[in-house]
Amino acid sequence: MNDFQFQNTTKVYFGKDQLGHLHEEVLKYGKSVLVVYGGGSIKKIGLYDKVMKELKDNNVEVYELAGVEPNPRHTTVNKGAKICKENNITAVLGIGGGSTIDASKAIAALTLVDTDNIWDLVEKKVAWHDALPVLAMPTIASTGSEMDKSCVIANVEKGVKSGINGDILRPRASFLDPTNTFSVSPKQTACGGFDIMAHLFDMNYFVNNDKYPLQFNVVETLLRTVRQQLPIAVEEPENYSARATMLWAASWALNSFCTSGYKTQAQLHALEQFSSTYDMTHGLALAIITPKWMTYLLNKDETVAGDFARFGLNVMGIQDQGDDMANAKAGIEALQNFIKDELHLPTTLSEMNITDEKFDKLKVKACYGQDSLPRAYRPLSQEDCLNIYKMCL
Amino acid sequence: MNDFQFQNTTKVYFGKDQLGHLHEEVLKYGKSVLVVYGGGSIKKIGLYDKVMKELKDNNVEVYELAGVEPNPRHTTVNKGAKICKENNITAVLGIGGGSTIDASKAIAALTLVDTDNIWDLVEKKVAWHDALPVLAMPTIASTGSEMDKSCVIANVEKGVKSGINGDILRPRASFLDPTNTFSVSPKQTACGGFDIMAHLFDMNYFVNNDKYPLQFNVVETLLRTVRQQLPIAVEEPENYSARATMLWAASWALNSFCTSGYKTQAQLHALEQFSSTYDMTHGLALAIITPKWMTYLLNKDETVAGDFARFGLNVMGIQDQGDDMANAKAGIEALQNFIKDELHLPTTLSEMNITDEKFDKLKVKACYGQDSLPRAYRPLSQEDCLNIYKMCL
Repeated sequence: MNDFQFQNTTKVYFGKDQLGHLHEEVLKYGKSVLVVYGGGSIKKIGLYDKVMKELKDNNVEVYELAGVEPNPRHTTVNKGAKICKENNITAVLGIGGGSTIDASKAIAALTLVDTDNIWDLVEKKVAWHDALPVLAMPTIASTGSEMDKSCVIANVEKGVKSGINGDILRPRASFLDPTNTFSVSPKQTACGGFDIMAHLFDMNYFVNNDKYPLQFNVVETLLRTVRQQLPIAVEEPENYSARATMLWAASWALNSFCTSGYKTQAQLHALEQFSSTYDMTHGLALAIITPKWMTYLLNKDETVAGDFARFGLNVMGIQDQGDDMANAKAGIEALQNFIKDELHLPTTLSEMNITDEKFDKLKVKACYGQDSLPRAYRPLSQEDCLNIYKMCL
Repeated sequence: MNDFQFQNTTKVYFGKDQLGHLHEEVLKYGKSVLVVYGGGSIKKIGLYDKVMKELKDNNVEVYELAGVEPNPRHTTVNKGAKICKENNITAVLGIGGGSTIDASKAIAALTLVDTDNIWDLVEKKVAWHDALPVLAMPTIASTGSEMDKSCVIANVEKGVKSGINGDILRPRASFLDPTNTFSVSPKQTACGGFDIMAHLFDMNYFVNNDKYPLQFNVVETLLRTVRQQLPIAVEEPENYSARATMLWAASWALNSFCTSGYKTQAQLHALEQFSSTYDMTHGLALAIITPKWMTYLLNKDETVAGDFARFGLNVMGIQDQGDDMANAKAGIEALQNFIKDELHLPTTLSEMNITDEKFDKLKVKACYGQDSLPRAYRPLSQEDCLNIYKMCL
């Protein structure tokens, strides 16, 4: 096992009756908070009112930044930090999906440095070491941003998504209330759930070094659990147990335990250039790419058959076909059917009228401009990436 | 799922080349440290010298408390705190098994209050809220004290084991080096490993409420992993992968993730009154009791058959016998054989020449003087406990 360091300090308040602790967490750091949210769904579900009442009843000075975009823009982050600086705000609370929580982290860092542009931090033009305390309240089970230390921001002018990360950005406290995810649509539930699976595939399950018994078995178990519970959350939006399972799984897929000792590069997330290019949900793009990537790898390199066979048997629950290659194929087929029949998601780009026009640009981005990702599960050339994109059509 | 709060702040340095970070962690809090250890096995394996060199080369003022007992005595704790007070020591480092780390936590708390007797804290005669920073370096995979917030201390005069707990006692950093466990004897390895399994059984696997899919599946996976890897560690003391798996499993079995949302009382640990009564290793006592407890429960209450059957199939890997009762019996038999044939541990008290003489006292202790543990997996009366003890003869 490779040496590693592990620490995750986030305090998690999990459940439907934890909101009363919010003011305690805010008041630990001062008397004010910037509440960051997106398009207003938190108002529709009544969460906004509950949060405001909890904060104001406890004499917290509340400021707001609404309208954070699904791929949060750096200009929005800049706006948030300006509010914090002008009002000496002492904490930032992100309520919403990963984008909102990511934006909150970026705002928290930008507030404490001597520039008004987050992109100076992203491009390392301005050094940063500190940040306002971040609090998080996820309303979808997906990115796991509520327990991790990084954030991704979009610079639309430059056509780039990038980010910053550091332990100081990890939320001090996160409020995970499964009922706050009840109103997430079946499609977004499915996309968020597949994002969780992709996090597990990418750095923790399809790994380029020895499998560590403990971490590997736990990751497989998380995958199997999501595979079992996600369709329930899709079909029964108010099933508390399924929603709770997904929400807790999202955090665990990305809170560093699963990766402990692994150093595999995230190939699927590198291939996933569709969301920024075609304005597509990140999890949907991953759901389209993953089975094609697996099929391509299996055709190209038989040494993956054992891993994919195990995936088929232990995660997808296929019947044993007798040999690795047959089980691997059955596993991929089961995954494709799961996405189509149980998650009810599109499985090709054509269904969304997307053509191959931009693939030549995407294949470069998929390799971060290099020849390949050298530490990926199986390094792929730009040509390989192009071939996989064509399979997605 | 019950609401819960989860936070585990310990920084883990895992692996064989992490000792160089020790002085950084010590110097975060001041310039000195009390190094607490047991009977000298850390000198035999060369760890003592390495630690001393690392600390002294970096100008840390080192004080020592040697000779902490397997069930750490409150008088030893008192002695440690006296050294800390007299020398204004700024951190405590426990190197050894759970006892040593537990003693370090108690010393850390006692140093900052106005009494010289830890038992005043245990009995709540003196209030305490703070503690010196604790650091830990486990040399056996067992209690998980290196990531948890409690400690157990023995008061020999009163014939009682009890403790204190609080977030402030959780080690700030723990150094988990699998090679530090290479010299643990096969028997102690087996006992430590069974202790891990018992932690998982007790609050997280045999639960008195709904099983939560995520936590339950992960706990089952941890159990299966320990069941597979522990015999390897017993047979091949220098198998790094098996030792690493056991060490990381010990921490995870008790670091609060597995219990998240559960409130089951630890019945096996309540029944385990043998170690303090007969000077027996805690994990061995648990290994003797567990199969008997399962057999007794299955005979008394058929509703456990489903859980025990699942245990047999998914943890012990038995062949499916067709129905729950048969699978449950086969599962218990497989566990008993595992303890005897793979862990090479005694399975009865008679083998150690222990008679039933003290059972009447033990049955009272097993219920903490009450009629039963009301929140246990299946509450047992004192009479039930006595019957189980008789099965252990």
